[in-house]
Amino acid sequence: MKAYNELIDISSELRNLERTLSLLAWDERTYMPRGAVKGRSEMRATLYKLHHKLLTSDRLKSCIKELNKSSNFDDLDPIQKASLREITRDFERKYNVPDELIQRIAKAATEGQSVWETARSRSDFDMFLPYLEKNIELRKEFAGYIDYENEPYDALLDEFDPGSTAKWIEKVFGPMKKKLASIVDDIASLDHTPGEGILKDKEFPVDTQIALCKKLAEDIGFDFNRGRLDNTVHPFTVGMDYDVRITNRYNPGNITSLYSLLHEAGHGMYEQNLDPELFGTPVGKYVSMGFHESQSRTWENFVGRSRAFMEYLFPMLADEFTFLSSYSPADMYGAVNRVAPSLIRVEADEVTYNLHIALRYDIELGLFRDEIEPSETEVVWENKMEQYLGIVPSTSAEGVLQDVHWSAAQFGYFPSYALGNLYGAQIFDTVRKEIPSLDGLMSQGDFDELRNWLKNNIYMHGRKHLAPDMLKMLTGDNLNEDYLIDYIKKKYSQIYGLSF
Amino acid sequence: MKAYNELIDISSELRNLERTLSLLAWDERTYMPRGAVKGRSEMRATLYKLHHKLLTSDRLKSCIKELNKSSNFDDLDPIQKASLREITRDFERKYNVPDELIQRIAKAATEGQSVWETARSRSDFDMFLPYLEKNIELRKEFAGYIDYENEPYDALLDEFDPGSTAKWIEKVFGPMKKKLASIVDDIASLDHTPGEGILKDKEFPVDTQIALCKKLAEDIGFDFNRGRLDNTVHPFTVGMDYDVRITNRYNPGNITSLYSLLHEAGHGMYEQNLDPELFGTPVGKYVSMGFHESQSRTWENFVGRSRAFMEYLFPMLADEFTFLSSYSPADMYGAVNRVAPSLIRVEADEVTYNLHIALRYDIELGLFRDEIEPSETEVVWENKMEQYLGIVPSTSAEGVLQDVHWSAAQFGYFPSYALGNLYGAQIFDTVRKEIPSLDGLMSQGDFDELRNWLKNNIYMHGRKHLAPDMLKMLTGDNLNEDYLIDYIKKKYSQIYGLSF
Repeated sequence: MKAYNELIDISSELRNLERTLSLLAWDERTYMPRGAVKGRSEMRATLYKLHHKLLTSDRLKSCIKELNKSSNFDDLDPIQKASLREITRDFERKYNVPDELIQRIAKAATEGQSVWETARSRSDFDMFLPYLEKNIELRKEFAGYIDYENEPYDALLDEFDPGSTAKWIEKVFGPMKKKLASIVDDIASLDHTPGEGILKDKEFPVDTQIALCKKLAEDIGFDFNRGRLDNTVHPFTVGMDYDVRITNRYNPGNITSLYSLLHEAGHGMYEQNLDPELFGTPVGKYVSMGFHESQSRTWENFVGRSRAFMEYLFPMLADEFTFLSSYSPADMYGAVNRVAPSLIRVEADEVTYNLHIALRYDIELGLFRDEIEPSETEVVWENKMEQYLGIVPSTSAEGVLQDVHWSAAQFGYFPSYALGNLYGAQIFDTVRKEIPSLDGLMSQGDFDELRNWLKNNIYMHGRKHLAPDMLKMLTGDNLNEDYLIDYIKKKYSQIYGLSF
Repeated sequence: MKAYNELIDISSELRNLERTLSLLAWDERTYMPRGAVKGRSEMRATLYKLHHKLLTSDRLKSCIKELNKSSNFDDLDPIQKASLREITRDFERKYNVPDELIQRIAKAATEGQSVWETARSRSDFDMFLPYLEKNIELRKEFAGYIDYENEPYDALLDEFDPGSTAKWIEKVFGPMKKKLASIVDDIASLDHTPGEGILKDKEFPVDTQIALCKKLAEDIGFDFNRGRLDNTVHPFTVGMDYDVRITNRYNPGNITSLYSLLHEAGHGMYEQNLDPELFGTPVGKYVSMGFHESQSRTWENFVGRSRAFMEYLFPMLADEFTFLSSYSPADMYGAVNRVAPSLIRVEADEVTYNLHIALRYDIELGLFRDEIEPSETEVVWENKMEQYLGIVPSTSAEGVLQDVHWSAAQFGYFPSYALGNLYGAQIFDTVRKEIPSLDGLMSQGDFDELRNWLKNNIYMHGRKHLAPDMLKMLTGDNLNEDYLIDYIKKKYSQIYGLSF
């Protein structure tokens, strides 16, 4: 079909521009010299402009129109229909939203981030407030141009987790909050923590950490023939289909680099295992941000922080860091699974993490439903921290000003982090049923069966299905918080000697 | 003027695409994983396509037409006129030459290179001959679409050294060949070589070489805030205006890395010192390939292989490589200036280098003037090697098959290498007159005055003038081989104790 081939040609060109922008982003955060910033932003602007022009072109518009004629549409196979769905969403978002609004948002986001940096360093919420108000107002205007499901916030969610809605998330986040908060309470009431002191005041040479991380990535199956591992300030992954690059940071005072490596390699393997048949097509990408996060969390937590994985990991650690040899895998398992309510999201453990997200989600939803005023966010934040985690930030920097997202006019992104943990737990429950020998394999450092399962069931399929449908197909169930809750209860009751 | 502003907008977009292609090329040869080749060629193809579309657009065509109206043209200042001249050349080359011919050339070049690699490894000229014939035929067809000065070969020269013609080059290459060949004869008749054995069978650890190269680059004035130095197989420089990257290779058995560093840093400083006012405009680039080469050769040879430079360099070398401490700067000066006729161009010394180029130029000119048949190139090559250098290759691999250029349908490029040495010597003669204290400064490692002279007189001005005009402005003289010949005679008569 001529119109469909044309659609694929356009999609491939768009994808090549996206790959190029990804390489620019990677370079910026790894090797680009400091003085190159201005030139780089000019290069990026030209590429974005060409991408925008192609995505909103009459050429694409008439392809979409042609393919939506029922005589044509009925001839499309399911993957072709999914491709049409995906490129149509991208097209409409760019075509319907006026250019000048996009530019106003970009400008406000740049200013917002700049002021936020200063405001955070001074812990001054009032300084940031006008910019927060502006960003919310602009995003409401933006949502007005999108054909959303039920409410404006859905238009924002749809950008990051297509197919999900506030109503759908709410049904799960509601009970999740209560159940997690109760577990946190129980653990907080104990006066012991497992593995305390093992990793404290020790020195872990960075070169050794880098070598270990490289080995971990190879062992779990990250393909260095089509990928790289480099150093950076904030770890990230860029996927360019044929070429997937992960980055990591190292601190000689701890071994968190091992877990950020597993996290990024999880993202990386998702990208590396897409079916080459789908490269450059509109479905040739991850299901959603939430799904992407589910795979990074799978390797970081469900695999990397499991008891079985520690049987494989610990001997390598004790070999390199000989002061650990007086401990056992069980001790180390405790040490990497300590739970403690903390103020900062990015430092949160498996149990408390989703509460940090729930709090942000509550506020975002309140703001976009006009139930919370921007000026109230700081107080609401403090109240909810107290309610969910039993602690209260003493400064704005440790509270409402800690994340960059709102200053950059990014609303609707936070839920992806929590969805990642929920999707991940639910999928891993299926994995455990389908691979009964999983613990035995992991303890021997054999990850092939697991990775192949994930590849055959998730990675290779790209965005053929929307997240809610994909989850149902994989697990036979709708999104349900109990998979995560049960996983946490089982794991942490054993570690903490509690019964929840 | 509206049309001129439009022209500058288009030029900036083109330049941003070129910068992006440069970054892709840099990445390909430094950090790109092996498995990414296919994806990278897709990315490149999309960017080239967009570049071509913009360069041949009606938008640009009407700008050029508008600005050429005498009422408009007369209002343009000299730099604006130069900008119009430069973008018009690029436009006409792409607009007049049919797309399908460009594609046939690209295809033939790819096939040619692939066959050439095998043919060279087997030293089989006959295997390569049909591809050589094809490439020549295609380039003749190509030249037919270009509005060349006197003869088809001028159309090819104009790509690399705008403004130069075969007639213009011939006038200088003719006497140059004779004079150089006679010097080579004189030196070959001697039975001693200076500095022999100093650098033989020694070990120069690569890490030390890298550190020395970094220091050399800093000392001569390469700006690491807007540049990088990385490892690669074949050293090269990419310029992206705000961001200029050089690469180098290291062999523990010798210190040629120091000279390839000076060469690339010379290219790099030329790129780094363009006037920012010219960034993105049609004149915002180097004068010509020959001029670019003149600046790399300046730092590699006229500076780096000078007696004064050795006073600065030798103490650092003796410090790192202690086995050198029994020698003197004078010994080392001899060692880095040994002259010996050799078969391979890229290994040639200052004296013999231009003879390698003259030979290739003779053959190219003969081919495009229909005075030599492609099938005769191997024999002509051997005869000319005998005539110019007194040696004859015993295999095609060491002879006519040694360079990649012809297999890639690149004709007209070789002269740039020799022009670089000629321009460089002529300009450096002026430099020495204008900076009488140059040797004193160089021997103390002070290169500021030299670099600033080159910056103020060459680097910053981009392509405001064509090479022949620029040379005349800089030196008060037309291109003249005697500057190089006199430099060589003076230097090597002293080193070899000869009088030429």
